[in-house]
Amino acid sequence: MSKRIEVASDLAYTVNAPTSFLFQIAVADNEHQTIESESLTVEPEMPIESCRGGPLGNRLHRLSADGGPVTVRYRATITLDQKRTPSGSLHESSHSALPAEVLGYLNPSRYCESDRLLKLAWDEFGRMAPGHERVKHVIDWVTDLLSYTPGSTGPSTTACDVLVGRAGVCRDYAHLAIALLRALGLPARYVAGYAVDLQPPDFHGFCEVWLDDDWYLFDATRLAPVGGFVRIGAGRDAADVSFATLFGAATSNPPEVSARLADGGQLESPSGEALSSA
Amino acid sequence: MSKRIEVASDLAYTVNAPTSFLFQIAVADNEHQTIESESLTVEPEMPIESCRGGPLGNRLHRLSADGGPVTVRYRATITLDQKRTPSGSLHESSHSALPAEVLGYLNPSRYCESDRLLKLAWDEFGRMAPGHERVKHVIDWVTDLLSYTPGSTGPSTTACDVLVGRAGVCRDYAHLAIALLRALGLPARYVAGYAVDLQPPDFHGFCEVWLDDDWYLFDATRLAPVGGFVRIGAGRDAADVSFATLFGAATSNPPEVSARLADGGQLESPSGEALSSA
Amino acid sequence: MSKRIEVASDLAYTVNAPTSFLFQIAVADNEHQTIESESLTVEPEMPIESCRGGPLGNRLHRLSADGGPVTVRYRATITLDQKRTPSGSLHESSHSALPAEVLGYLNPSRYCESDRLLKLAWDEFGRMAPGHERVKHVIDWVTDLLSYTPGSTGPSTTACDVLVGRAGVCRDYAHLAIALLRALGLPARYVAGYAVDLQPPDFHGFCEVWLDDDWYLFDATRLAPVGGFVRIGAGRDAADVSFATLFGAATSNPPEVSARLADGGQLESPSGEALSSA
Amino acid sequence: MSKRIEVASDLAYTVNAPTSFLFQIAVADNEHQTIESESLTVEPEMPIESCRGGPLGNRLHRLSADGGPVTVRYRATITLDQKRTPSGSLHESSHSALPAEVLGYLNPSRYCESDRLLKLAWDEFGRMAPGHERVKHVIDWVTDLLSYTPGSTGPSTTACDVLVGRAGVCRDYAHLAIALLRALGLPARYVAGYAVDLQPPDFHGFCEVWLDDDWYLFDATRLAPVGGFVRIGAGRDAADVSFATLFGAATSNPPEVSARLADGGQLESPSGEALSSA
Repeated sequence: MSKRIEVASDLAYTVNAPTSFLFQIAVADNEHQTIESESLTVEPEMPIESCRGGPLGNRLHRLSADGGPVTVRYRATITLDQKRTPSGSLHESSHSALPAEVLGYLNPSRYCESDRLLKLAWDEFGRMAPGHERVKHVIDWVTDLLSYTPGSTGPSTTACDVLVGRAGVCRDYAHLAIALLRALGLPARYVAGYAVDLQPPDFHGFCEVWLDDDWYLFDATRLAPVGGFVRIGAGRDAADVSFATLFGAATSNPPEVSARLADGGQLESPSGEALSSA
Repeated sequence: MSKRIEVASDLAYTVNAPTSFLFQIAVADNEHQTIESESLTVEPEMPIESCRGGPLGNRLHRLSADGGPVTVRYRATITLDQKRTPSGSLHESSHSALPAEVLGYLNPSRYCESDRLLKLAWDEFGRMAPGHERVKHVIDWVTDLLSYTPGSTGPSTTACDVLVGRAGVCRDYAHLAIALLRALGLPARYVAGYAVDLQPPDFHGFCEVWLDDDWYLFDATRLAPVGGFVRIGAGRDAADVSFATLFGAATSNPPEVSARLADGGQLESPSGEALSSA
Repeated sequence: MSKRIEVASDLAYTVNAPTSFLFQIAVADNEHQTIESESLTVEPEMPIESCRGGPLGNRLHRLSADGGPVTVRYRATITLDQKRTPSGSLHESSHSALPAEVLGYLNPSRYCESDRLLKLAWDEFGRMAPGHERVKHVIDWVTDLLSYTPGSTGPSTTACDVLVGRAGVCRDYAHLAIALLRALGLPARYVAGYAVDLQPPDFHGFCEVWLDDDWYLFDATRLAPVGGFVRIGAGRDAADVSFATLFGAATSNPPEVSARLADGGQLESPSGEALSSA
Repeated sequence: MSKRIEVASDLAYTVNAPTSFLFQIAVADNEHQTIESESLTVEPEMPIESCRGGPLGNRLHRLSADGGPVTVRYRATITLDQKRTPSGSLHESSHSALPAEVLGYLNPSRYCESDRLLKLAWDEFGRMAPGHERVKHVIDWVTDLLSYTPGSTGPSTTACDVLVGRAGVCRDYAHLAIALLRALGLPARYVAGYAVDLQPPDFHGFCEVWLDDDWYLFDATRLAPVGGFVRIGAGRDAADVSFATLFGAATSNPPEVSARLADGGQLESPSGEALSSA
């Protein structure tokens, strides 16, 4: 069931004053994602610091530039072997049974004001039986509520803003879903990654929900098959996994991103299965 | 220079439906805080799960109750031995020199929208030389801007709200300071704790800023001497270190909290020194 | 079909510094509301200025006090003769046919951010045939969405806040309804008044929508029969018709308010009729 | 002291579905603004309804189009004869002496949340002696606080947002000034107009404050001399005087706007005088 996937991203900057860059573009390496080959090239040549950050050990790359053009080119080929679990068998854990390390993902965060959505979440979803089916229902509710509209939101847009405006892009879909799930008492977090067949091609943002004893992937945008999601890293919300964070002064072009099956073929759509890659 | 401190907190609930409680009221145990004696008593008697949560290993206590009155009584006597560093010797690290594990404390969080405060922070503080003096200046700016006004803010109030309304309580002071410091590129986080001589007695919230190679304590409220701060735990903002998080349905009275020097005497005011206890 | 109604309100203040008071507590006098008798008494005795303000000529009373206790007692008996129109005969005017004097009630206002709700309003109500039925549907949608919860909102709460939090009091119900109707292109405004049989007794806030060629009354709270609504005044939103606006420093108790049928009996519930009193 | 001014604006739309247009682009005609000549031309030819709306009788033009391109061309030559008053002689009226018709301009509005800014306004400006000097100080405070930055704000941006973000365009400067002045108890409103020598050329937004017994013009942007401000209309805030309001579906280009002295020469800068044109 594993598949080989090639991902690529190209970033281009013009640096106007000494600037420190922090990138989260390299794919995660864990038991579900095996990196066959990988390269990170920066022009002009300069030292690249590779490290791991955050409580989840997300892979980071840092560099500093004093001025001029800087381009970053990332390529990787991985074998993706997501865990597949019959969704009907997955339960929500009772709060008192949640492991301590997932409790923080119940807290509200910058873009997911779950504390303001308690009544809405319980009004809409409180009468459903807990379990995978309910999570799926929350995700579908977000899908149905919002319209995917590039340009309708910005970097300060939160889950509550999206609830009011009813339009957004992938990060907004994920933020609203995460906020609602946390309001219901379900640990939920944001995952940044690459997505095979995403149109238009870009980095993707989706969410991950704790059920039974693992993190399961969900995507309210339905823009690409979850079976082709390659994770970069995870965090509270998009604030934790920006593909690039800059301290200094630089201008940039939109990133060029791609992800495709290395051996061709089609992604099968899993039916009745939940996927995890954490 | 170490001192013995006694802390106490009493919480009382009436449980109306099966409820899971998560408490963060026990003092941190680390090289700066040695616990001499400690007790956590719950009435009626029931199992208490003790664990550590979050990336910082905050101490948590969990319990579940089906109904009726529940009281929680915590007592501890500790030896507090804060690290003292001449403040004039402390520098801000350049962004590229920050250790990976503190980078997450540059990100905006639920109550600290540093992403919206970049221009303000750089307008107000960008021309000052980086270092402890600048951090102190940010803290003083918050002290001067706000009026300490119980009841003026609520659980949804953010740093930007406080900037507009100019009034708040300890958590609001800390949130605004943290947001401004992150906007300047300084890792900053929220600490919940006990504070000797705090008037009126309550849990306290303050902030911690990364300078050189450690976390240093700051408090914009000036309501109690930093030398008497006993830490419970730290996090992105108050969302991470609520003294009590409930899933279920219960009503409560305000907590009764106290902290005092076990051997009497007065807290000396450190001058020209920065304190740390992380 | 006319009825006699007695209304009363009592306000009590303690003035701590010279304070100017602006009251909107006197009932409107127009072709639908005939004032039989009316009194406004202030203790201690002082000059009361009576005037009309705002584009709608709302009745205002102003007074100034330097200190001490001030009580305001208002009593009126009126004959209420609301216009009744078969609701099935009422149409929404096309935008180009709206009279110029109602166009301002399409604009967003402090508590009714209709500009942020365009997509939601058209998603939810855009496919319905325009007319009284659609307005009623919007009102019912608000009724079903919200829970009437005193204390859940405050003086800064807006329609968008209420949409997120799903709880509020009469002014919040009215604000959300008004914002949605304006977003649909329907002039809508806020009316403050007295309401017979309102429980608990208080001033009431409801809304008024322009259909065909008049303003029709709607109330999403369903807390009291519209047939017993006695108008004080109208405006963009609650900001325009506060029962009391103070410039200075005074503390107050909650107002005591009542409204009842002067001749006893029961308010019949109009069915299939829209009421207006503007 | 009067001067002749030529103003021009050109608007271009592509109508995609039947659309009703409401324009506020024609200059006000009052004792300070005498219209010598004026033309409003629409292509293709269609009926234009001319009316007056809002409490201030702003001039409105309405038209409807079913589809295709629509261009609107407005030209006017006026004689502007602003009233000039020595600013040192102008006083703030006490609240109890304000005429009833200006009281509404003390209320918060969509983009001017004066109710949230009471403490800030009184902290910053409450110790100054009331009068023109204090108003000027508020305006200068806004000028100094903000950076004029096209693109930094949008149609939903409010005074509080601008206070946080510290950047904006003319409407944002006006909104923040208005909100602060209302918070101080000064009636203030928004004026839309043309401004001689405005760079880049565009419609302009500024504010008007009630002093003694008239509305005086102020502009925190300092982008053009107040002596060359030609008023279109006034309202609570920008929501009331949009140059174009559309109900339907159309796309547009940015308007082309100009204003110049008809007889050449330079605008003298009034010093020590307040100007009014209401």
